[in-house]
Amino acid sequence: MSREVFFMRNFSLLLDYYELTMAYSYYCQNKHEDEAVFDVFFRDIPDKGGYAIYAGLEQIIDYINTFKFQEEELDYLRKKNTFSEDFISYLKELKMSLTIYSMKEGTPIFPNEPIMIVRGPLLQCQLVETFILLTLNHQSLIATKASRITMVSKGRTIMEFGARRAQGYDAANYGARAAYIGGVFGTSNTYADYLYDIPALGTMAHSYVQSYKTEYEAFLAYAKTYPNNTVLLVDTYNTLKKGIPNAIRVHNEFLKPNGYYLKGIRIDSGDLAYLSIEARKLLDAAGLFDTKITVSNSLDEYSIRTLLNQGACIDSFGVGERLITAKSDPVFGGVFKLSALMEDGILVPKIKISDNVQKMTTPGFKQVHRMYDENNKAIGDVVTLFEEVIDDKKPYLLFDPLYPWKQKEITNYKSKKLLETIFLNGKLVYQKPDLIKIRDYAKESLDTLWKEMTRLEFPHQYYVDLSQELWDLKQSLIVKHNE
Amino acid sequence: MSREVFFMRNFSLLLDYYELTMAYSYYCQNKHEDEAVFDVFFRDIPDKGGYAIYAGLEQIIDYINTFKFQEEELDYLRKKNTFSEDFISYLKELKMSLTIYSMKEGTPIFPNEPIMIVRGPLLQCQLVETFILLTLNHQSLIATKASRITMVSKGRTIMEFGARRAQGYDAANYGARAAYIGGVFGTSNTYADYLYDIPALGTMAHSYVQSYKTEYEAFLAYAKTYPNNTVLLVDTYNTLKKGIPNAIRVHNEFLKPNGYYLKGIRIDSGDLAYLSIEARKLLDAAGLFDTKITVSNSLDEYSIRTLLNQGACIDSFGVGERLITAKSDPVFGGVFKLSALMEDGILVPKIKISDNVQKMTTPGFKQVHRMYDENNKAIGDVVTLFEEVIDDKKPYLLFDPLYPWKQKEITNYKSKKLLETIFLNGKLVYQKPDLIKIRDYAKESLDTLWKEMTRLEFPHQYYVDLSQELWDLKQSLIVKHNE
Repeated sequence: MSREVFFMRNFSLLLDYYELTMAYSYYCQNKHEDEAVFDVFFRDIPDKGGYAIYAGLEQIIDYINTFKFQEEELDYLRKKNTFSEDFISYLKELKMSLTIYSMKEGTPIFPNEPIMIVRGPLLQCQLVETFILLTLNHQSLIATKASRITMVSKGRTIMEFGARRAQGYDAANYGARAAYIGGVFGTSNTYADYLYDIPALGTMAHSYVQSYKTEYEAFLAYAKTYPNNTVLLVDTYNTLKKGIPNAIRVHNEFLKPNGYYLKGIRIDSGDLAYLSIEARKLLDAAGLFDTKITVSNSLDEYSIRTLLNQGACIDSFGVGERLITAKSDPVFGGVFKLSALMEDGILVPKIKISDNVQKMTTPGFKQVHRMYDENNKAIGDVVTLFEEVIDDKKPYLLFDPLYPWKQKEITNYKSKKLLETIFLNGKLVYQKPDLIKIRDYAKESLDTLWKEMTRLEFPHQYYVDLSQELWDLKQSLIVKHNE
Repeated sequence: MSREVFFMRNFSLLLDYYELTMAYSYYCQNKHEDEAVFDVFFRDIPDKGGYAIYAGLEQIIDYINTFKFQEEELDYLRKKNTFSEDFISYLKELKMSLTIYSMKEGTPIFPNEPIMIVRGPLLQCQLVETFILLTLNHQSLIATKASRITMVSKGRTIMEFGARRAQGYDAANYGARAAYIGGVFGTSNTYADYLYDIPALGTMAHSYVQSYKTEYEAFLAYAKTYPNNTVLLVDTYNTLKKGIPNAIRVHNEFLKPNGYYLKGIRIDSGDLAYLSIEARKLLDAAGLFDTKITVSNSLDEYSIRTLLNQGACIDSFGVGERLITAKSDPVFGGVFKLSALMEDGILVPKIKISDNVQKMTTPGFKQVHRMYDENNKAIGDVVTLFEEVIDDKKPYLLFDPLYPWKQKEITNYKSKKLLETIFLNGKLVYQKPDLIKIRDYAKESLDTLWKEMTRLEFPHQYYVDLSQELWDLKQSLIVKHNE
């Protein structure tokens, strides 16, 4: 029941203006159809984590697949008095002919490896830069945060509750999508359920309780409406002295006599460790062993870990603003860098030099191979030139690209190419998976990581190495630059 | 040329699911048309600032004005197997009849005063809660951040450059809108220009420079395309040794002989204080006194202040991810709380009790008055019951609602009601101002604040007081609750 309304908006102008000024200048120099290769990669994992989760490819596919300048957008460009009518006609007729390689959504991704490669006419590459980065930066940010939160919750249910604090409507909707990929069970956002079949859940606000003469009346009214699914917010007046006793009374006086059972309570304020433990005692003392306890209130992976370390009796966490905005580190820094350019029929690798050796780009048209050991645990990723072959039957020498004397020869490994062809000369050749499949894939992929990599703090750093051939190429370009 | 595409999306389902479960329960109890009053307010200013800037009203108006459940959304609700067909028919026929009061966009706003009041049928109030909060939380967050950044830049141009790092498409577009209200000059986001006439600017990326054999060739090509508007990115190879000399050479060899002038250079990496000072020397030595220097690279109000304190020679700042996500404090915490409910024909004030006295809500149907001194500086805001009259000719006693012995009698003041009627029983009675007017209003309003309130750190705290009548009401409800 995916009802993607994405198509209703034409995003051809959702780009940094410099993409247009560059595009027009290329057009004027007749360089606009020169073939270029751009890499999408990032340099730092949010929250100093051990991995990130890639998300957003589906929306990028939809965007590329429907890219078109309409008359209204062309009129806008005309009125800038900057671009020639020739150029505007060219944009009008423009059909995307890009070839795009990408990792699959849900893949754990690491710094300094291409997550996506965009190859094709220089002008087209520039036009799609902003949208591609915006999409994958946002969704990868939230998927990664959701994965961290899911990771510490040890099987308890995580609900995404952040719509009202999201940074705009798309942040609420695509944020819920990304959080689902990252492992949350459901969302408070009904629209995300409508669009993507992400289970929407929710019960009542404090205003519901306040709108009845007494808390008991409010609970009873709610139980009558939803006898099968009675979850009561117990902290409007006093959680332990009023809320839970009233909830138990509704169970005893209405639900139980009618063959129902109090499904749960929710606590939204106060000391959640203390209150949940005491709540559990009160519920258990009333025989309500199966009544679940949900908590919410400014939660994130750190506070959830602390609650669980204190023995809090919590079955489900509602996580709001700190997930939907990735509050502790709200930016995913994906970049889009030129890596090769066709010159006189030869694809020439390009490098961006920097005083900071870690900020230098890796030149050339590339592939990423993930290496797995015999237990299906990921050993590391190797970035190679696109056509390089890794023969799993032969030992492979991994070495650190910054400290190449750090070496490790591996045997008995399996390698897997991570970059798949999504568009070939503008034609979509990739089957978009269902969202639930992406979520499953993320979960399976996380199981291939060593648990030392999934720690919140000081995680083991995953290896992202270069092949000897690629490393040599990079060094030769650095030397050439310094000459 | 506003081309709001907002209407193309039906946001009737962009709500927390609990709004629907409550709505249905109210419907079952025949309470759904009980008249209620909800306040929208916030408790903390982001970044511990002295003020926030209110934004987002225009989109809230558009949403309320077009609110309608369509067949597709009703079908979705039907398939939840939770709601009766009666209720779904009710939603189908639902027309918004809310009365909404709001401050104007661009108003400096403060904690614990109603920014907006929503009055009408309980069910309708709940349905619009999520969208209203989402909208004003996002846009007020970004407008406030932009205002802080503009404030420290002391008249220099601030450009919003963050689209690629925004949290989704709406965050890029409405974020640019909010940043514009907050005082930025323009945006890199072309779509925001197309939608809202916010000037879109931009020149070139490093890839442009790299796509030519030499930096000089790239600069010359760009200058030929835009002789009137040549701004060159000078840090691809080496800012001082290569970039600026090449830019000067393009001026001397192409621009000047053809009657043009090098408009500007942009530096996007390195030590911006040092580089901008040295760049200015090089440009001045070449006689290019009017060539502007623009910088970018992870800027925000703190780094801009530091740069200016170091005497950096910068005319314009491009501010990206730290503005568009409000990175240092990325959540604006607006809430939506019941303040009164019609019971047997009488509007009964409601309070939400909390152990934390600062978290108690202020009951009743209210108005906010801003008090100005004879120099048109804002003295403080007074929250009153809606019908209370403040007679500017009489002295007025301000007192702190938490520490009521702190008192101050004011005379020679002017008071102004801040909450205006936007919708009256569902009918829009407010004329939406143009965006540029909102921006001007924000600027004028900021001029009424003491400069001690606009400091980045430890600003003077603005007074938000209660009238004696409202304070008495609140105390009486607290006492009543404790009985």
